[in-house]
Parts: sequence; structure tokens; C-alpha cells
Amino acid sequence: METHVIEKLTQENYNEMVRLRRHFHMYPELSFQEVQTPAYIAEYLRELGLDVQEGIGGRGVVARLRIDEALPTVALRADFDALPIQDAKDVPYKSTVPGVMHACGHDAHTAVVLTAARILAQHKESLTGNIVFIFQHAEEVDPGGAIQMIADGCLDGVDAIFGQHVTSSLDVGTIGYKYGIATGMPDDFTVKIHGRGAHASKPHVAIDPVAAAISFCNQLQYAVTRKSKPMEPVVLSITMLEGGHQHNVIPDVVTVGGTIRTFTKEAQEVMITELKKCLEGLVTTTGISYDLDYMKGYPPVVNDEEKTDIVLAAAKEISTVRETIGLEPDLGGEDFSYYLERVPGTFYYTGTRNPNFKADYPHHHSNFDIDEKGLVNAVSVMLNSVFKFFEKETN
Amino acid sequence: METHVIEKLTQENYNEMVRLRRHFHMYPELSFQEVQTPAYIAEYLRELGLDVQEGIGGRGVVARLRIDEALPTVALRADFDALPIQDAKDVPYKSTVPGVMHACGHDAHTAVVLTAARILAQHKESLTGNIVFIFQHAEEVDPGGAIQMIADGCLDGVDAIFGQHVTSSLDVGTIGYKYGIATGMPDDFTVKIHGRGAHASKPHVAIDPVAAAISFCNQLQYAVTRKSKPMEPVVLSITMLEGGHQHNVIPDVVTVGGTIRTFTKEAQEVMITELKKCLEGLVTTTGISYDLDYMKGYPPVVNDEEKTDIVLAAAKEISTVRETIGLEPDLGGEDFSYYLERVPGTFYYTGTRNPNFKADYPHHHSNFDIDEKGLVNAVSVMLNSVFKFFEKETN
Amino acid sequence: METHVIEKLTQENYNEMVRLRRHFHMYPELSFQEVQTPAYIAEYLRELGLDVQEGIGGRGVVARLRIDEALPTVALRADFDALPIQDAKDVPYKSTVPGVMHACGHDAHTAVVLTAARILAQHKESLTGNIVFIFQHAEEVDPGGAIQMIADGCLDGVDAIFGQHVTSSLDVGTIGYKYGIATGMPDDFTVKIHGRGAHASKPHVAIDPVAAAISFCNQLQYAVTRKSKPMEPVVLSITMLEGGHQHNVIPDVVTVGGTIRTFTKEAQEVMITELKKCLEGLVTTTGISYDLDYMKGYPPVVNDEEKTDIVLAAAKEISTVRETIGLEPDLGGEDFSYYLERVPGTFYYTGTRNPNFKADYPHHHSNFDIDEKGLVNAVSVMLNSVFKFFEKETN
Amino acid sequence: METHVIEKLTQENYNEMVRLRRHFHMYPELSFQEVQTPAYIAEYLRELGLDVQEGIGGRGVVARLRIDEALPTVALRADFDALPIQDAKDVPYKSTVPGVMHACGHDAHTAVVLTAARILAQHKESLTGNIVFIFQHAEEVDPGGAIQMIADGCLDGVDAIFGQHVTSSLDVGTIGYKYGIATGMPDDFTVKIHGRGAHASKPHVAIDPVAAAISFCNQLQYAVTRKSKPMEPVVLSITMLEGGHQHNVIPDVVTVGGTIRTFTKEAQEVMITELKKCLEGLVTTTGISYDLDYMKGYPPVVNDEEKTDIVLAAAKEISTVRETIGLEPDLGGEDFSYYLERVPGTFYYTGTRNPNFKADYPHHHSNFDIDEKGLVNAVSVMLNSVFKFFEKETN
Repeated sequence: METHVIEKLTQENYNEMVRLRRHFHMYPELSFQEVQTPAYIAEYLRELGLDVQEGIGGRGVVARLRIDEALPTVALRADFDALPIQDAKDVPYKSTVPGVMHACGHDAHTAVVLTAARILAQHKESLTGNIVFIFQHAEEVDPGGAIQMIADGCLDGVDAIFGQHVTSSLDVGTIGYKYGIATGMPDDFTVKIHGRGAHASKPHVAIDPVAAAISFCNQLQYAVTRKSKPMEPVVLSITMLEGGHQHNVIPDVVTVGGTIRTFTKEAQEVMITELKKCLEGLVTTTGISYDLDYMKGYPPVVNDEEKTDIVLAAAKEISTVRETIGLEPDLGGEDFSYYLERVPGTFYYTGTRNPNFKADYPHHHSNFDIDEKGLVNAVSVMLNSVFKFFEKETN
Repeated sequence: METHVIEKLTQENYNEMVRLRRHFHMYPELSFQEVQTPAYIAEYLRELGLDVQEGIGGRGVVARLRIDEALPTVALRADFDALPIQDAKDVPYKSTVPGVMHACGHDAHTAVVLTAARILAQHKESLTGNIVFIFQHAEEVDPGGAIQMIADGCLDGVDAIFGQHVTSSLDVGTIGYKYGIATGMPDDFTVKIHGRGAHASKPHVAIDPVAAAISFCNQLQYAVTRKSKPMEPVVLSITMLEGGHQHNVIPDVVTVGGTIRTFTKEAQEVMITELKKCLEGLVTTTGISYDLDYMKGYPPVVNDEEKTDIVLAAAKEISTVRETIGLEPDLGGEDFSYYLERVPGTFYYTGTRNPNFKADYPHHHSNFDIDEKGLVNAVSVMLNSVFKFFEKETN
Repeated sequence: METHVIEKLTQENYNEMVRLRRHFHMYPELSFQEVQTPAYIAEYLRELGLDVQEGIGGRGVVARLRIDEALPTVALRADFDALPIQDAKDVPYKSTVPGVMHACGHDAHTAVVLTAARILAQHKESLTGNIVFIFQHAEEVDPGGAIQMIADGCLDGVDAIFGQHVTSSLDVGTIGYKYGIATGMPDDFTVKIHGRGAHASKPHVAIDPVAAAISFCNQLQYAVTRKSKPMEPVVLSITMLEGGHQHNVIPDVVTVGGTIRTFTKEAQEVMITELKKCLEGLVTTTGISYDLDYMKGYPPVVNDEEKTDIVLAAAKEISTVRETIGLEPDLGGEDFSYYLERVPGTFYYTGTRNPNFKADYPHHHSNFDIDEKGLVNAVSVMLNSVFKFFEKETN
Repeated sequence: METHVIEKLTQENYNEMVRLRRHFHMYPELSFQEVQTPAYIAEYLRELGLDVQEGIGGRGVVARLRIDEALPTVALRADFDALPIQDAKDVPYKSTVPGVMHACGHDAHTAVVLTAARILAQHKESLTGNIVFIFQHAEEVDPGGAIQMIADGCLDGVDAIFGQHVTSSLDVGTIGYKYGIATGMPDDFTVKIHGRGAHASKPHVAIDPVAAAISFCNQLQYAVTRKSKPMEPVVLSITMLEGGHQHNVIPDVVTVGGTIRTFTKEAQEVMITELKKCLEGLVTTTGISYDLDYMKGYPPVVNDEEKTDIVLAAAKEISTVRETIGLEPDLGGEDFSYYLERVPGTFYYTGTRNPNFKADYPHHHSNFDIDEKGLVNAVSVMLNSVFKFFEKETN
């Protein structure tokens, strides 16, 4: 299919794509709790005449558009889970679920691949290969849905895979790409610090887990600033504090949760070691004990060079993509990595930033939003990449 | 009534007192949520033939034993609220309410005054004055029940007041007393630290309220160690941390709660000033904003010299009290202070510590318990003080 | 000698006393390095016709005014060492020694006892007892001069001792007294934190002793706020930091010095234990090693009740003393305690505060100064106490 | 000159080179205080028959080997200043100057370029271009000697420049190279924190600059961990702490020194801004004032692609170089950057690490040493690069 046709078809489907995205935005579901979303996706895909499987890897949906088994097969992937964040936007399509929100753009990802599916299903005749549409649950929460969907066969027969993420770091009109390592290893940890509670007026008879938690969180900063290699990017964010229910009671336990993100096993090991040394030091100093639950995260996303070439070339041909931007790697995790460990592919980024529409909040912010015009680029680049891939394979 | 008679009657009522205490222990109710406890107390007092008023100051119970209005009147006070702590003891009388527990001994206080009421009601003939039994709700939570019960008239006509607190700091067999200032001002604070959330891998686009909360809690220590007068006792305990629900999301808000306890207005003002300066400094350094809710606590308990003399003399006569101990003031708060601002009285402490029965955990600990044998002393001293007071007044 | 005579003689000697004080102020000498000061004192005392001994306990001076060995003997003590502080005042009598200053008032103490000696030497006939004038070196630095002077016999035959300290905490015209415990135990510590240096751009190959020192100093605050009894006054001041000479070199070693002041052995032991636990925890967390030099300080000054009665009565008779003030104990250390462990006596405080003359800076401040008018009270109270003591003893 | 000749000549000069290096090692001189070192260098160069200029840019030495002004000119640069570190090695050539040491290898750099000069001066006939030998003072201390030597004309007529640094991060037998950005911007800062001193037992009347310094150093960690972009390498090392001279005196002032190293102006500005915000926050919280002296460091070393190609090719031909290693950029600063801002060139690294000779301590460590065998490679690569450069220019 020629690029101008792709662009025309995408524009024709714009309103429908926006409708889809807003529908998902209004009815978000948390990771590993998705019910209505996959049902809606499956129904939509069935109406397109595709061969649809539900419950893949638990809650995922896979649809196949088969042309000829002898031809190459490409997979297109979207994720569809939301986050435990209260939507703070004042828009008609605001989340209707208290405390749950599509604050990372997975609603848009799903709308993009559904729209790609709609266009391709209606123009089978132009395809010289097969397509697998992968709609994945639970990208946000370890262990993620990808690994389970793969186990359930979603990559069977797949030769290449493409995925995309919208981003408020890039302006509408741009596409970001990255050769090689694109994302880090997003490890999570939860530490329960056990002290000994007491009346708040008698700290000397307590082992104060709040004071110990503060010291722990503070000392951890030095693991980053003193123990990690300066040239190795490392992020340690403490994101969860919980302990105590009464002003006048020193509690028994405080829970501290957070994430450590690195690009290399070596940097990861340094941080794990230092985290433990911080805790062990506190045992000596304060008398606390602790439970550490350290969950190693997704492996890094490593984009294939050839497939990245394809997306880059595809993007440069789209008239509404005014710029392609080579990105630095990012410490956000992404379980698209599991697909890439098995088949070559690439993960690209679609600019949806637009301050004029308040679409410039960071991801995971309660005011996060996108400029939906960006979704046109997401779809156009995806379709153009599919055709370029088939062309390349069949030549 | 002679001391040996008091002791005999108290012993006779021991089993009933233990039954009462264990009943309350099994059915604890949180401050300002007491329903069954005051109903039970009122019913018990009515069966003793007393003139009972319910709903005093909201949820308090007042019973009057009137002999002659021309005679002096003494009030005996117990508090009956429990704490939001999970009972961790393995005993038959363990709390039946998940997450709620009599971890401060108010169950015992109520049993003690009910037992005193029972004995006195059955021996009216020996009384040369009137008695008001005050059963107070909500001692643990500011603004406390006392101030409201007073507003509702519980001290009308009262000439003196006695109250007592069981304590795991003193061994069974001892009574603690304190002339003058006995308790501090237990202020509470809650700070909401507002930052700007973001994905946990991008701290530089966030204003991290977790990091700011850690800095705040840490810097507050210096208010105690550097800004308070060393000779002025000050306790600052941070007892509540809450923020963040997802490992990979830096939250918008973290809440920090705690208590500041001082004996003087001057020390209190230093701490309030420094608390605010810590927060203002963080606004400058980190870009957070904050809401501070600072709740000044009860005034200090100031025991009357003459009434303390009476209790001390009364205690020395009781055979099961083997030692009376002059106490240092304590930074725990107690709204018995409101009564003492209006009528002279004293607040004494009954030793209930006994390691042999695991009755040596600090107050507000999930394993807190008492040696019930100590309650005999609590009642005997209370009754003996009542008679000594009448004797003194009518001579 | 009658009080009005004492006052008259003191006034007559005022200019000479000021001359003496300013002389010492201009030529301060550090603890255990005093040479000219004791020589000057000894010469002055010899000219008064007293029996003078130099080099007592190393650098102390003792002068005896003997009336009759059968009569009681009282000792009057002054200390004469200065501090390593740069005098920042702009006055004619400013210190001439760079970096050394009488910032605690020992110049005044010496002038006061020299003036008392002058008056008494000139009025021997009115004495009914013997006097020992003790001029002590090295009060500021552990182990102090007192213990060494005592070993050298300065208290031989002494029945009572009086000493005084000027203070910018009390206004001119006041005298402070304290029964019983007056000062705390001023322990000092020096910690050498050994890491492993490296180029400042490569912290990960270093063991950074600067970072460890910061963590140590910070964690120590919690020893005060969480581990000490709130009712037990404790001061921990970190007063010395030293490490590193080059911006681009992480040093091998950082030295941290400070002081811990307590009133009881129990509180002292808690702090020593916690100090060590902070260091041991850091060993585990950071890999440093350390040398701790902990020097227990002077014992508490415990004033004798009878001798304090004498000074209080003496002060009330002096017309220029408009108020006597019962003081709280103070966590400053004072090796006058060693004398009091051997002979009864008391240590009183003379108000020299006067904002009009900029005499309101704290002790050990580079702008510290006194209102010299206060010295009249210091001498008058001292002399009056001597006569009252003799009177009491010989009655 | 053919490579095997270069290698042979370098080997013949090995003993002399080692003698030179050890001489400089024994007589180190601090930056901007070099007197004997440049005199020694100048004398040595004069004896080689070169045209020598002393006092260039203050203390630098420049020697010219002129063949023909029409031919290209290459500069070879060594630095010769030492560090304020006490030599802790036990070797015959240990520093003879207390507290001063060649702990970064500048002694070796000087020996290398002197040896290169000796060989080239003795084989002028083989040169098809001119050489400028630049011996630079004061590389370690801002503003460095380079900028001043350039102002004094040391680069006049120069077409390319080579320099090298020995390194204990690379094994003997290796040469490290880096295309493009090789070093960061090494900014230094010194903060004087002004409080108000007092006796150490009375922190509440002081404004404690020690406590403020600790809070400052601790809070600065968050500037790195929370405010810098994770993908931008940033090092902040606090390397100097100074304050207080007496255990019982809270000082007026504490001085904190350190370094901030970044690769981009943007990262640099973030850190400067956050540093100031930390200080301003402390002003609000603690009442201190401060003086900040922030010294921006050298610009980044940016190696020319073509010149780096030359060195890499040159290194691969040397038989004793068993490996060439592409390096990551390094946050150490190097004022070789000033030369590279004016003429193209490259800065390469010579492995001198050898644990068998204890030559594996980090740079700026008091035990730093090199395996002198590595210097053979340093010289061989330098000479081979010179001939390759001339060959390229004249073809």
C-alpha cells in the first residue's frame, strides 16, 4: 500500500480512533484486573472478521489476519492496563473509575492497534504477509502480561514485531526511535522495617521504625551518589511510605517501597548490594529487623537494527511526521523486551505532547493527557512499517 | 470506713472487677465512636441504684451518689476509649474487634471506678459526702471527652476529683504520685507535602514529595537537638507516614503525622516555629508546597498539693501497696488536666507491671497487658482517699 | 568584717580589679600552655605578702594567708586559662594574641580572687580563719588543672571552698545559686573515619569518608531524639569537622569531634552505646573503619547545702545585688567538681550581662564580653561568704 | 621513522626515562608553586640543543624543534605539577617533600615528553615537520596553566596537538582512546556557612553551623538523585570539611568544599541552581548565612576524529601494546581542553596498572604508583603518531 493511501485511510479512521481511545480512557482497569477492556477489544476485532482468541496468557487478546502461511508474519502489539492514579483532568472523557486512570497512554496504544487492524482487515488484498494483533494486559505491574502471552503462543509463527508508545516528552509531529538498548531494568523493592512500638512520648522504650525508615531512605541516596559508577545511569526512587495510624503511637512496622532502574547487570548488582548494606547497617545501629522483597524487573528493550531502519524510513515518508528523533535510552521499564528476546523488532515513540491542550504533563501524572492528533502518526508509521517489512521480506 | 474494711471489700469484689475489665477488653471501641461501652456502664450503674445520666458531653456517663447537698462532693473519674491497634496477645480475653484494642488500660480504669461505685453504693451509710462517678469517652483523641463533659455539667457541685492510670512502668504493689506538673502538652501535627508526581524513572520532571518528606523528618530532629533548651524536656515523634501506591509512580502527595510534647508554652512555641521553618526551607529547596494542621493538645495535668497528700497518705495505709514512688513528670498527655483546671484533685498511677504474666510491654503496644492484681490497689487507694478527703473536709 | 565595709573596700579596689581583668584579657594563654599568666599572678600575690607556691599541679598558683592553724580554712578558687577563639571585639583591651581569647570570663575570675586576696591581705586582723587562694590553669580542657592541683596538695587543710563564674545569662545585679547538682558531665569524643581516597570524579572506587562522616553526624541526632530518656537532659554537639585539602581529591580520613553532656551515668552510657552503634552500622553500610577516642569529662558539680545557704545569705546582704536567682542545672562542665568531691563548698554565678555594653553574647562566642560592674558583686559575695563561714564555724 | 626503529630507540632510552620520572617523583611541587621542576626541564631541553623558553604563561616551559616553517607543526604536551597529598609508598623514589606527591602521574607525563624530545632531537633528519614541546604547570588547580601558556603563544604555528595521561584504570600493555567528548567540566565550590558560636552545652543560643553543614551536605545528595537527569552523568563530591577547634565550642563558621562534574551546560546549570536552593532553604530553616564561591572548571576535552584515528593506528603498530581500548568519557577534568579548542588533536591514555607492583591504586591516592614499563608505550605511541601525522600532512 502506498504511503499516501495509508495516510488517507488513517485520516478517515481518525474519529473512530478517538472514540475508541476515549472509551478506554473513561473505563480504565488495573493491571491483572482487566475484564471489560479485553472483552471490548475482542468483540471489536471479531466484528472486523478476524480470528480472535481471548484469555491468552490470562487476560490478553490475540487476533490473526492470515493471508498465506508461507508468507512472513508480523506482530503489532498494544498494552491496555491502567494505573492506580486518580484522574484530575476536567475533560468529558475523564476516567469514571475513582482512583484508576490511563495515565500512561495505554488507552491510546490500544486504539492505535485496533485502528491499524480495522484498516488492514478492510484492505487484506494489499497484504503480502500475515498479521498478528497482540493486545496485552498488565504491562505496568511485574511480572507483566507479555511473558505469559508468549507462553500461551502469541508469537507462534511471528517473524517480526512492532510496538509503539505515546510520549509527552516529544511534541506532536515527531517520532522517536532508538537503535539497540532502549529501556532499563525496572526492579521494584518493598522493605518492611520492624521495630517495636510504644507510646509516642516514650521513644526510648521503642525501637522506632519510622526513624529507621527515614534513615534508610536517606542513606540510600548515597548508594546512588557514591557507590554507582557516574557513567552508568541509575535511578532509585522511593515511591511508597506506609506506617502508623495514630498520632500518639510509634508503630511496630513501616513499609518502604520503591524502584531501582539500571541498564547493566553490574550496576543492578551494585545497587542491590548497597540496599542490603544500608539495611544491615541499620540493624546494627537501631535494632530494627527487616523483610526485603526485591523483585527484578523486565529485561531491557533491545531494538533490532534492521527493524529500526524500517520504522525510521517509514516515519520519514509520513507527511504529518515533521521530525524523527534519535532517543537516548530511558530508565522506564517495558515488557515489550520479552517479545524482542524472541523475535526481532523495534519499539518506537510517538510524540503526543502539546501544551496548548494541556498535553504536557509527565506520564503517571494525574493530569496526564495526549494530543490525539499524534495518534494519526502512530498508526501511519505502524502501517507503513508493516508494508515496508513485507516488501523487504518478499523481495 | 476503716482501711481494713476497704481492703476486705475490695478483695471481695476482685473477681467481679476482673470480669468487668475483661469484658471491656474484649469489646473495645475507638474514641468518639463508643456506643456499647457507655451503655454497658450506664446499665451497671443503674443496677447499683445510682442516678445515672448518659450522653454527657456526647458519649460520657455520669452517676451521682447523693448523701446530702450540704456535704462536700468528690468526683472519681475513669476513661473508657480504646486504640486503633491490633491486639497481638494470645489470651482468652483478647480483643474481639479487629484492629481495635485497649492498649492503654482504660478497660481497667473503668472496672476500677465501677468497682468503687459498687462498694460505695452498697455502703452509703459510711459516707459523709457525695460522690460523682465520671466515665469519660475519648481520652486518646484530641479534643478529648473531658472538656465536653465539663461543659455538660459533670463537675457541678464537685469539690475535689481523683483519677488514676494503670502503668506498666511500675511494678504491681506500687503506687506512683506526683506533686504539681505531672504530664505535658501532647500536640499533634499532620503535614501534607504536595509535590508533582511522575514516572519513577524520571525524578527530574517530578517534584518528589517522598524525598521532601524524608528531608523534612530528618531535619526536624535538629529542632529537638539544636533549637530546644537542653533542660526543657521535648519529645518529637513522627508516627505516621503515608504516600504512594505504585512502585513505578512518584506520588503527588505524602502525609507525615506526629506529635510534639512539651511542658511549657515557651518550649512548645520553639518547636512550632522550627517545624514551620523546616517546611519553609523545603519549599525553597525542593519546590514543594504543604498544608500543616497543627493541633495543640491537652494542657498539663497539675496535681493539687493537698489532694496529693491525701492520696499518698491513703496509699501508705494499704497493706498490698508495698511502696509509694514519687514520679517525674511524663510527656504523655492526659485530659484529666481539664478537670484539674476547675477543681483541685490529683491523678495517681497504679503499678500493674509483672513480667511473669507478660505484663511488661509499653503502653500502646500490641502486646500491652496488666497484672490485674494491681487493680486491687487502684480501688483501695481510691476509696481510702475518698474517706480521708471527707474526714478532712468535715473536721 | 561587716557587710558595708566589705562593699566599701570592694568599691575602692574596683579600678585595680578592672585593670587586672583587662590585663589578663589582653594576654590570654591556652589551657596547659599558661606561662605568663601564672607568673603574673604569683608576682602579684607575693607583693601582697602572701606565701605563694607556683607550678602546683603543673601550672597552678596557690597562695596561703595563714592566721592560725587551729582555725578553720577556706579556699577561694579562680581559673585562668583562655580559649582558641579569635577575639572579634573592638575594645582597647582586645586580645593581643591572634586566635586566643578569654571568651569564658576566666580573666574576670582571676581578677576577682586577686582582688579578694588583696583586700583580705590588707585586713588580716579581721580574719578568724585561714585562706587558701587557688589559681587554677586549664579548666577548659580535659583532664583539667583541678585534679592535678589537688594531687599536689592545694586542698590540704581546707575545710570549705567557694568559687564563682561570671555569666552572660544573668543580668548585672544578680547572683545565681544552685543547691545540689549544678553541672553535667562534659564528655568529649573524637572520631577518625578512615575510608579510601580517590579522585573526586570516581566516588565508586573510593570509600568516601566525607559521606560517611555526614551520615554519622546526622544519625547521631537520633541517639538524642530516640534513644535518650526525654526527661533526662542530654546535649550532643558536634563541634569539629576536619578532612580534605583539595577540591578534586576524596580524602582518606575525616575527623569529627564533639561533646556529649549528661547528668547521670545511665544517660551517659546510653549515649556512648548509641555513638558506637552508629559507627558500627556505618562500618557495615559504607565499608569505613574508625578510631574512637572517647574522653569522659569532669564529674558533676554538686554544691553543698550549708555552703550554698551561706552564699545565698551573703548575697542577699550586698546592696548592689538586687536579686538572687535559683538556677537550673547546666550541662556545661566545670572541674570545680573535683574540689567539691573532697571538701564541701559551693559554686555561684555572677551576672555580668548588659546589652548596653554589648555584654550579652554567649560564652565561647568571639564577641563575648562582661559588664565589669558585675565583678563588684562577685568579690563582695565572696568576701561576705568567707566571713559568714568563719563566723558559723567559730560559733 | 619506521615503527621498529621507534620501538628500539624508546627501549634504549628506557633507563633514562625512568631516572627522569623518579627524579620528578622525589621532588614534587604544587600547582602554581613550581620552581625547580620547570628549571630542570628547561635545562634538560637546552642540553638537547632545542630552542627553549621559560616562564611561558607564568611557569611553563616550551621548546621548539624547527625543521622548516613551511612544514606542518605538531605539539606534544606534558603537565608537571603535583598534589597536596602525603606520599605513603615505601619505595626508594618516594616523595621527599612532606605532604606533596605526584599522585596523578604528571611526573611520568613529563618524563615521557622529555624522552620523546630526546629521541626526536637526536634524529632530526627523519622529521618532515616541526615539533613544539609544551611542558605545562598547574594542571590540577583552576584556572590551570594551559590557558595562560596559550595566551603566551605556545600554540603559535601549531597544526595539531597530542597529549597523554597514564592511568591505573588500564593494565600495562593497553592504550585507551576516545573519540569526541572525553572529559567533563570539573567545577569546584567552597561554601562558608556562618552561624553564631556558643558554648557547646547551649546549642539553643547558637546558630549551629556544623549542624547546618551536615544538613547541607546531606541535602545536596538529592540534587544528584532527584534533580539531575538520570541519563546525564553528574558527580558531586564533597571533599573538604573544616570547622571548629575546640570540643566545647560550637564554632561560628564551617567551610565545605567540593566538586561538581558534568558534561553539559544544562546539567551544570541544574546543579548550580540546586546547590543554591539547598543553601537558601537552610537560611530559612536554620538562620545561617553563607558565602558561596563557585568556580566553573575546564571545558570538556573534545578529541578530533582524524587525530584520534592517527593515535589509534599508531598504537596498533606498537608491539608492546597488546590492546587498544575505546573508553567512555570520564568526569575528571583536564585543561588539555583549552589546546583542543584551538587546534585539533587528541588525548590518549596509557595503561600503567600492575597489581604485582602495587600499581593499582586510584589516582590521587596516597599509594598511587605506576608500572614504569607502560611509559615505553606512551612514548612509542606518541612518536609513531607524530610521524604518521607528518606523513598524512605531507602526502
